Amino acid sequence: MSHQTDIFSMSCGQMRAQGLRLQSIYPQLLEMVLRLQKAIEEHFLQVRSRHKQQDLVLEEQRLRLEQRRSEAIQEQEALVARLMSQLANVLQSGSWNDPGLQLLLPSMDTRGNAGSGQGAQSARKPDQLLPLLREWQTASVIPVLSNRGEDISDLYHMSFQDHIANQGDKYHEDMNISGIINLSTSENKLCTDLMAERLSWSDMNYIEDDLLQYPDGRGQPFLREEVARFLTYYCKAPAPLDPENVVVLNGCCSVFSALAMVLCDVGEAFLIPTPFYGGLGFSSRLYAKVELVFVYLDGEITGGNTQPFQLTVDKLEQGLHEARLKRKNVRGLVLINPQNPLGDIYSRDSMKEYLEFAKRHNLHVIIDEIYMLSVFDKSTTFHSVLSMESLPDPNRTHVIWGTSKDFGISGFCFGTLYTHSREVATAVSAFGHLHSISGSTQYKLCRLLQDRDWIDKVYLPTNCSRLQEAHKYITDKLKAMEIPFLNRGSGLCVWINLRKYLDPCTFEEELVLHQRFLDNKVMLSGGKSYMCKEPGWFCLVFADKPRRLKLAMRRFHEALQEQKEELITALLEDAQKE
Amino acid sequence: MSHQTDIFSMSCGQMRAQGLRLQSIYPQLLEMVLRLQKAIEEHFLQVRSRHKQQDLVLEEQRLRLEQRRSEAIQEQEALVARLMSQLANVLQSGSWNDPGLQLLLPSMDTRGNAGSGQGAQSARKPDQLLPLLREWQTASVIPVLSNRGEDISDLYHMSFQDHIANQGDKYHEDMNISGIINLSTSENKLCTDLMAERLSWSDMNYIEDDLLQYPDGRGQPFLREEVARFLTYYCKAPAPLDPENVVVLNGCCSVFSALAMVLCDVGEAFLIPTPFYGGLGFSSRLYAKVELVFVYLDGEITGGNTQPFQLTVDKLEQGLHEARLKRKNVRGLVLINPQNPLGDIYSRDSMKEYLEFAKRHNLHVIIDEIYMLSVFDKSTTFHSVLSMESLPDPNRTHVIWGTSKDFGISGFCFGTLYTHSREVATAVSAFGHLHSISGSTQYKLCRLLQDRDWIDKVYLPTNCSRLQEAHKYITDKLKAMEIPFLNRGSGLCVWINLRKYLDPCTFEEELVLHQRFLDNKVMLSGGKSYMCKEPGWFCLVFADKPRRLKLAMRRFHEALQEQKEELITALLEDAQKE
Repeated sequence: MSHQTDIFSMSCGQMRAQGLRLQSIYPQLLEMVLRLQKAIEEHFLQVRSRHKQQDLVLEEQRLRLEQRRSEAIQEQEALVARLMSQLANVLQSGSWNDPGLQLLLPSMDTRGNAGSGQGAQSARKPDQLLPLLREWQTASVIPVLSNRGEDISDLYHMSFQDHIANQGDKYHEDMNISGIINLSTSENKLCTDLMAERLSWSDMNYIEDDLLQYPDGRGQPFLREEVARFLTYYCKAPAPLDPENVVVLNGCCSVFSALAMVLCDVGEAFLIPTPFYGGLGFSSRLYAKVELVFVYLDGEITGGNTQPFQLTVDKLEQGLHEARLKRKNVRGLVLINPQNPLGDIYSRDSMKEYLEFAKRHNLHVIIDEIYMLSVFDKSTTFHSVLSMESLPDPNRTHVIWGTSKDFGISGFCFGTLYTHSREVATAVSAFGHLHSISGSTQYKLCRLLQDRDWIDKVYLPTNCSRLQEAHKYITDKLKAMEIPFLNRGSGLCVWINLRKYLDPCTFEEELVLHQRFLDNKVMLSGGKSYMCKEPGWFCLVFADKPRRLKLAMRRFHEALQEQKEELITALLEDAQKE
Repeated sequence: MSHQTDIFSMSCGQMRAQGLRLQSIYPQLLEMVLRLQKAIEEHFLQVRSRHKQQDLVLEEQRLRLEQRRSEAIQEQEALVARLMSQLANVLQSGSWNDPGLQLLLPSMDTRGNAGSGQGAQSARKPDQLLPLLREWQTASVIPVLSNRGEDISDLYHMSFQDHIANQGDKYHEDMNISGIINLSTSENKLCTDLMAERLSWSDMNYIEDDLLQYPDGRGQPFLREEVARFLTYYCKAPAPLDPENVVVLNGCCSVFSALAMVLCDVGEAFLIPTPFYGGLGFSSRLYAKVELVFVYLDGEITGGNTQPFQLTVDKLEQGLHEARLKRKNVRGLVLINPQNPLGDIYSRDSMKEYLEFAKRHNLHVIIDEIYMLSVFDKSTTFHSVLSMESLPDPNRTHVIWGTSKDFGISGFCFGTLYTHSREVATAVSAFGHLHSISGSTQYKLCRLLQDRDWIDKVYLPTNCSRLQEAHKYITDKLKAMEIPFLNRGSGLCVWINLRKYLDPCTFEEELVLHQRFLDNKVMLSGGKSYMCKEPGWFCLVFADKPRRLKLAMRRFHEALQEQKEELITALLEDAQKE
């Protein structure tokens, strides 16, 4: 009070106004800082308790990974702690002993308590201000990678560990016959002969100056024009698609990553039904830090479902509702059609319902149609979203396609976006600078897409019949082995159920079986890497040459025999113990 | 300033002391709050990314528990966000318009933006203070693009506006003779005949199954092996370089972006001398959000400098010191050698000093040697960092190279990293998934790099003499026009001084002249886009075919004549007025 009186008694107008403003801010500021500090402490405690919880259930492989992440978090905590200390020190050194301020302090209860005593105590003693934060305040060494770099390294190893670990032991018909056969990566190797032949035609090797210079970031105009014509024709678009709405990048994952970058902010989310192609998870996280929120579908036929893993609008609604309860900011829905790994094809009506659901909730829809020409069961028909007469929300409907699956040339690294939103097309174009395809490859792609005669008369019919044959070969084998599977007519893989080989039926045991396959020199992905809800499912890529497929299936069979024998031995041992 | 003078002029002792104390605390406080805010944001991101990581591996039983915990954490985040907002609001409302404070603000760039101008902008606008925290507390209308998407779109237009605006009016010898000739993009078009011929050889068009399948993310082993051999030979490495330390991505900008991702966290910084190739700014910001902190070099020969734009360790020390004063977390130094746009070649001793400077401060060094084979003045010698017998800090020394400039095939989109740090090589490999080159292009590149006979006997000698000729043609013209320029013997451009055509000599007038060039159908980049400190400098790319170059120089000359006449007219008008 005395202090305040002093001020009021002064006649220096301007100075007084200024002084008063600063003074009146000061206690508020202090109170805020104290409350903030409390909030941060509690937040840290919460995070810590999460760590502990997790430690109980950590798998051994994840332990190191988690430790590094913990260290990164701790470094940040240390930083926050240092900053808080500095802030507090400034406030203390500046006016801590000011009697005018001290009078105000008891009301600033940092703990939110009704009583003021303790608040005043802790406010008065600087050393006790930050009891918890000080724990985090440690001197840190500077590692080679940044925290983010460490995370990226971890993500990479986690996402591609099979491939990284086994890249030195790939099967090769001549050079490494005992190498691992990959039935895990979704690739179509059935028509490499046709493709190699077509690529050797003289029209492919044209070189002109423009192809040697920096390409247009959105894709060369000649290629975008051809893509627009190609999609108009094969997607049965009601009107010619516009090359200005086409963006070409080096692969569909790059397109998906770019969409995640421009449609979401950090930490926002896309809704996606499971199981789904795991590469999308990597692509949405690496750069965009966009979360995929899962709509878990059931393998069992229950309730209103007429087939396993059936997607319904109700499930989408429920998934969105739950995500919003968790305060996740969902910005879009991701659909793969034909679906990978299930092979399902959404009917036109179903697709329309999904799109209308999205419109109701202001969601973008990204539809990955990368398998659109890989429908080998002629009794089913695929309808591209681009064939619809009218889209519920054209500006939020974005289609991805590429040649990796349908033409079996994943090595070309070509992915394209078609969107009616010029705004989105332009924003995605920004990524062309870092995701462009070489000029000569763009030229080859253009020639390829242009050659309708070859595509319609040679490539597609041959590819279709070879897919049918390979699919029949595999499914006959599975039937003989009494392994349940989804019998679908599209895509490059069969979704199989190996639950009966797991005891107990857990994701840990799924991993054990996965390792047994590898030990038997055949690689399959477990359902877990497709975010499947139930353990025991595996994805088996069948689009491979007959000889390799035959050998792979022998190894597959042997691995399951081993697994079965081990299960029986374990059962007998258990029985003997009892 | 006026505000501080007011205080000093007052005689009210106690009040003055108090006011001054509060005032002097204030800027520190504000800066702390901003840094704290950034730390909290990063912490939240870290925690969020943990969540995501876990979501992938969550077992069903743990899901509900985790959800509840997530909700609690998010509530706390919201609380912290509210508190931070209040705190910031108080600070803003209290003294936001205080000119003394504003002087400090440009250093507090919360977005990690390059350049202080924009940093100051974002610091000044309260709404932009909390870009991330805002997400946690507001429900907003939903535009098509995310905030980030809008930023990316802006960045894209800002970075490539010339090219976007003029892409429909490119010069073409047959089709568009009145189109714009590009002397702005650093491309070597002198040897496209040689290259087209070499690429047409039969060895180039080999196709095998492996090239059609997904490539190894780090680059195909055969290419990495060839790159290691190539760099060992042309960089004169004392021992064979290891293919395991090579990462191949689709372009040097992709490599630089990936390095920024793994060496820095969001908002951290690299030190870089100016002027420098502006594409690095785009590449460090698009994904990595890494700031480039400029070490401004002088065009004038002053003090201890023996040549214009001379880089010294003192300047690096000073740049780092100033950056640290502004609390920027500098993680590395970026050098381009041979330098673009200056054409300078650092001596071995200078380079060693720069590397030792970096080691003293625990900084990474990224050396872009993309012009290493484009040294056309035989009296100067380029020394690659990879030729050094011992590097001061090998694990933090990373070299970038590509074929875009030295082989004039930017259209191949090939960039490579060589680093002694296996940790960095592995982390950068994570980006291979989204930045890979098509298999057939990798094959062609391998064949090309392998053909030492052609490179040494045909390509390099011809390229060198054509560079010399083109350089001589241009510099003779410049001399005739009495335009000062840096006479260097490497690279693809000449750094010229057009200050005398600017009145007043400002960046605004530089832009006017730039537009006048465009109006005269020739495109040149002004020094501003190279972050040059002084207005009036332009970069003139000379590595173009004689006929085109001649026409371009005529247009260049005409534009300058126009400019000169206009300046004279304006002078006369001014004189008449007086």
